[in-house]
Amino acid sequence: MSQSKTAPSERTRVRRLHERGSYDAASVYGVLDAMPLCHVGYIVDGKPHVTPTLQWREGDHVYWHGSAASRFLRAARGMHACLTVTMWDGMVMARSGFHHSANYRSCMVFGEVEMVEDAAHKTNRLEAMFDVWFPGRWDVLRPINAKELKATTVLRLPLNEASVKIRTGPPGDDEEDYALPIWAGVVPLSTATDEPVDDPRNLPGMTPPDHVRNFRVGRKV
Amino acid sequence: MSQSKTAPSERTRVRRLHERGSYDAASVYGVLDAMPLCHVGYIVDGKPHVTPTLQWREGDHVYWHGSAASRFLRAARGMHACLTVTMWDGMVMARSGFHHSANYRSCMVFGEVEMVEDAAHKTNRLEAMFDVWFPGRWDVLRPINAKELKATTVLRLPLNEASVKIRTGPPGDDEEDYALPIWAGVVPLSTATDEPVDDPRNLPGMTPPDHVRNFRVGRKV
Repeated sequence: MSQSKTAPSERTRVRRLHERGSYDAASVYGVLDAMPLCHVGYIVDGKPHVTPTLQWREGDHVYWHGSAASRFLRAARGMHACLTVTMWDGMVMARSGFHHSANYRSCMVFGEVEMVEDAAHKTNRLEAMFDVWFPGRWDVLRPINAKELKATTVLRLPLNEASVKIRTGPPGDDEEDYALPIWAGVVPLSTATDEPVDDPRNLPGMTPPDHVRNFRVGRKV
Repeated sequence: MSQSKTAPSERTRVRRLHERGSYDAASVYGVLDAMPLCHVGYIVDGKPHVTPTLQWREGDHVYWHGSAASRFLRAARGMHACLTVTMWDGMVMARSGFHHSANYRSCMVFGEVEMVEDAAHKTNRLEAMFDVWFPGRWDVLRPINAKELKATTVLRLPLNEASVKIRTGPPGDDEEDYALPIWAGVVPLSTATDEPVDDPRNLPGMTPPDHVRNFRVGRKV
């Protein structure tokens, strides 16, 4: 994402709380790379439709995938979309109700959906998805076949219209309220990764490889 | 939500993977009550816009709030919206790339945004929000004043058009792939609540009350 590409458009400009907004590539990459879960908004029959999915980033594009049988994804090419990633990092508890808030990192990406259709290109993107989430796993799996590839839709948005908002730190109370005997502070939240659960149908003696044990999401940037 | 209200509309019907979909009130309440973080999709200038916020439920409505200065929220009355809550409960790792998946609980609510405007009604909703998230805190705070109430917009959607999708359990591999010596299983994910962090400007001797220590999100239903 070049410097010129990161200038805020009318749509991405963060209107309120300007100090929380940024548009630089490092900020956008930082949020997208920390959390695969995203929500993609489309317009379906004239109404907004927000669906959860998992995203990954390669260079200046954010990718997601789904079933070629999906009514949404089949019709997605060229559709306007907004892909939003949010990590809720904490509940911010102030001395007044009004100043309660949330600590968070979020990224909104706007654009027109592009479809990855060439079979080789599509295979490479799915391999890259595995490399992002659990490096090394792709090579140990039963290889993807032509039928599966055909049944998979890979979509992407360019990152030339994206913005990031981040809030951190303690509450910001009205100055006179700091004298009140009310506990204020932050309850930190994070995504915990628990011990891998074996598939009951694993062959005897199988244990989770490093790429499973090392899988983490929601890392702090 | 009466039985008749929970019949799936054309929009909420889960088209794919029917076994994952449900429309009953208990399922909808279960997801909404477990996770305040939501993503609300609106149409702004003809394009989808997905913003993160925190929701709470009272009866057959889902509520959220924001600043009365927000360009979105000011114009939101009667706008079509889609509010989606998602908990990502695990990464599902199969023996083929194709059958990798995610365990999750998600709820989509569709409707036209209603604004809560009456001052007393608005105050009661904000108090209810505190009662949902940290019962007892509202009463110990510096009370809300007229200026703050005016600066706060409270919005809601009825829950008469909502659907839930849930995936749990191990991967579903192709039958012949179960013979392969590949580890498969689930890496469970959850929202962890860490120790409260005191505001550095707390008065001496203040400690987090029970409603802070007991705050949890993303509970399993």
